[in-house]
Amino acid sequence: MLETMRWEDNKLVLLDQTKLPLEICYFSCQTYHDVICAIKKLVVRGAPAIGAAAAYGMALAALDCCRDDLNKCREELSRAAEALAASRPTAVNLFWALDRIKQIIRQEITCEDLFERILKEAHAIFQEDILINKKIGQFGAQLVPPGATVLTHCNAGAFATGGYGTALGVIRAAREEGKKIQVFADETRPLLQGARLTAFELMQEKIPVTLITDNMAGYVMKKGLIDLIIVGADRVTAHGDVANKIGTYSLAVLAKEHQIPFYVAAPLSTFDFTLCSGDEIPIEERDGKEVREVFGHLTAPVDVPVFNPAFDVTPHQLITAIITEKGVIHRPDAHAVREVVGTEN
Amino acid sequence: MLETMRWEDNKLVLLDQTKLPLEICYFSCQTYHDVICAIKKLVVRGAPAIGAAAAYGMALAALDCCRDDLNKCREELSRAAEALAASRPTAVNLFWALDRIKQIIRQEITCEDLFERILKEAHAIFQEDILINKKIGQFGAQLVPPGATVLTHCNAGAFATGGYGTALGVIRAAREEGKKIQVFADETRPLLQGARLTAFELMQEKIPVTLITDNMAGYVMKKGLIDLIIVGADRVTAHGDVANKIGTYSLAVLAKEHQIPFYVAAPLSTFDFTLCSGDEIPIEERDGKEVREVFGHLTAPVDVPVFNPAFDVTPHQLITAIITEKGVIHRPDAHAVREVVGTEN
Repeated sequence: MLETMRWEDNKLVLLDQTKLPLEICYFSCQTYHDVICAIKKLVVRGAPAIGAAAAYGMALAALDCCRDDLNKCREELSRAAEALAASRPTAVNLFWALDRIKQIIRQEITCEDLFERILKEAHAIFQEDILINKKIGQFGAQLVPPGATVLTHCNAGAFATGGYGTALGVIRAAREEGKKIQVFADETRPLLQGARLTAFELMQEKIPVTLITDNMAGYVMKKGLIDLIIVGADRVTAHGDVANKIGTYSLAVLAKEHQIPFYVAAPLSTFDFTLCSGDEIPIEERDGKEVREVFGHLTAPVDVPVFNPAFDVTPHQLITAIITEKGVIHRPDAHAVREVVGTEN
Repeated sequence: MLETMRWEDNKLVLLDQTKLPLEICYFSCQTYHDVICAIKKLVVRGAPAIGAAAAYGMALAALDCCRDDLNKCREELSRAAEALAASRPTAVNLFWALDRIKQIIRQEITCEDLFERILKEAHAIFQEDILINKKIGQFGAQLVPPGATVLTHCNAGAFATGGYGTALGVIRAAREEGKKIQVFADETRPLLQGARLTAFELMQEKIPVTLITDNMAGYVMKKGLIDLIIVGADRVTAHGDVANKIGTYSLAVLAKEHQIPFYVAAPLSTFDFTLCSGDEIPIEERDGKEVREVFGHLTAPVDVPVFNPAFDVTPHQLITAIITEKGVIHRPDAHAVREVVGTEN
C-alpha cells in the first residue's frame, strides 16, 4: 500500500490524493504554508491524516523559525498553529494534533531543541495512529459477521490515516481473521473519494468491492444486499453525534428504515468533549466548482448556484455503535460515551 | 425553451440531451434503428419523450416498409415495434405509445395510408403530452404553497416530455400562478440529468435553482430547507408504486423521516395497470462505465466492478400523492388510484 505521508530531507512528502488512482504523484511541503495549501486542496484528507500532516507542518515551522529568541520563536509557532488550525474547520483531529504540539512549545526548552521535539511528536502522532487503527480494527471486526457485505462511504482507509484505516481498518481486520467480506463503496460526490480511493485501496488489498453512485445506497439496502454500514468520522461529540463526509446522515436514515446496523469507526482523537450536540459542529462549505465540475470538466451550467457542504452530522440515535481504540460504544449517548472513553482525550 | 424533438423532412430530429448544457446539438434519425440507438444512448430520455420518440420511430419504419403487400408491411412494422420496445425496459410510456401505433396497424387500411396515419398518431402523442403536462401542472400547483422550496431529482421537465414537464411542469404552473418558488436540484449521478438538464431548464425559465449532489439531499432536509419534493415517474403500478430514476426511493425515505410531502407527477400513460406491486417492474441495469466515468473521464479504477441500476421503486406508502392529468391521487393505494384514474389507460 502506498504511504500517505513521509518525512524526508526535512520536508513533508504527501501522496497527492486528489490525483489517485489515475496518477500516483507526491506533493512536497517545504514550509507550513505548503501544508496548509495541501490540507485545503485535499492533497491530504481524512481526519487522522490531517492531524498528522498539521503536526509535521509545525515541525516545518520550527525549522524556519528564529533560533536565538525563545519567545519570538514561540510567537512564530503560535501563528503557524493558528494558520494550520484555520485550514479546515470540521475535523477535530487537526486541533487535537496542534494541541499536542503546543504543549511542547509551552515547556521549558531551548530554541535548538524545539524542532527535534516537535518532529518527534509529529512522528509519534503519525505512528500511534496505525496502532490505534489496528485496535479499532480488532474491536470492530467482532461486529462483522463472516460473509458480510459492508457498505461504506467516502474513504476512511489507509490514505485517511496513518496507514491502516478506521472504517476500512475494521474491514481489513475482519479479513485478517479469515472472514469473507465484500464491500459496496459509495462513490462519494463531489470529490469521489469512494470511487477514487476506497475502490482503489480495496482492489489493492484484493477485497471484493462494487462501486455504486451515492443515490443507489437506498436501493441496495432495500434489495437486502447490505448487512452493515461502517463509516469514519471527522468529529464526535460528547453525546455521540458524528460529523462525517456529506451523505453519511442520509445513509444512517436509510439504515434505520432497513434495520441495518450503522457503525462509526473513530479514534479518540476524533472526539470533541467540548461539544454536546452535533448541531454545534461547524460544517465546512466548499467552492461550488467542486459540484459543477468533475476533474475540471464542467457538468452543469457554469453559473448555476451551488450549495456544497463538505460534511453532515448524524445524531447518535441513528448510530448502532461507535468503534474506538478503547472499545465499542454501543447505542451511543452521553453516558455510553463516558463509560467507554472517559470525558477527555 | 429548446424543442425536445421535431419531425422535419421525413426525419425525427432529436435534441441531443447527452450533450446539454455544454453543447446544443441535434441527432437526426432517418430510420427506426436510429431512434433505438438514440433511446439506448439517452439522446432522448424521460418516459413521455421516449414514448413520443418511439411513435415517430414507427413512422420512420412505415416510410421504409413494403408498399404493395399489407401483410408484409404489418410484419415489418411489428418487428420494428418489437425492436423499439426492447430499447429500454422500465419506462412504460414506450409500450403505451407503441400500443397506440399498433392499433392503427391492425385497422383496415392501405399500405399507402399507413405512414400518414402513424405519423399523425405520433404527432398526436407528442402534442397531447404538452396539454397533459399542463393539466398535471394545474392540479399540482395547488399542492405548492407560495414561497415553497421544492427538491427535485433527475429531469422531469420540458426535455423529458412534449415540452412543459411533469415535476417541473408543476413548478412552472405554480410560478405562472404568481407563487414564488425556488428549487434544489439533485445532480443525479451517474448521468447528471439534474445538473445538466434541470439546472439548465430552470435557469432558462429564471426560476431560482440551487444545485446539490445527491448525497446532500438528507442534509438540506434536516436543515429545514425543503418544503416538498416532486419527482417524475417511469412507471406507476395499479397500487401506486412508482419506478423512477435511481435515488428517488432514498429521497422518499428521507422525506418520511423529515415529514416532508413527497409528490410524484405522472401522466396516465405512465401507469401500468397490469402490475400491482412495484417489485414486478423490471429495472434496467446499464453499463458500469457510466459510473466509472463522467463525460468519458475516468473517475475510478478502470476495472472496478460496478452495479448500475438506472431506476428504483418507491412503494406507495412513502408517497404523499401522485399528480395526474385526471386529478390528484392522495395517499395512493389500489383503491385511491382506481378512484381517480380508473383501471386502464
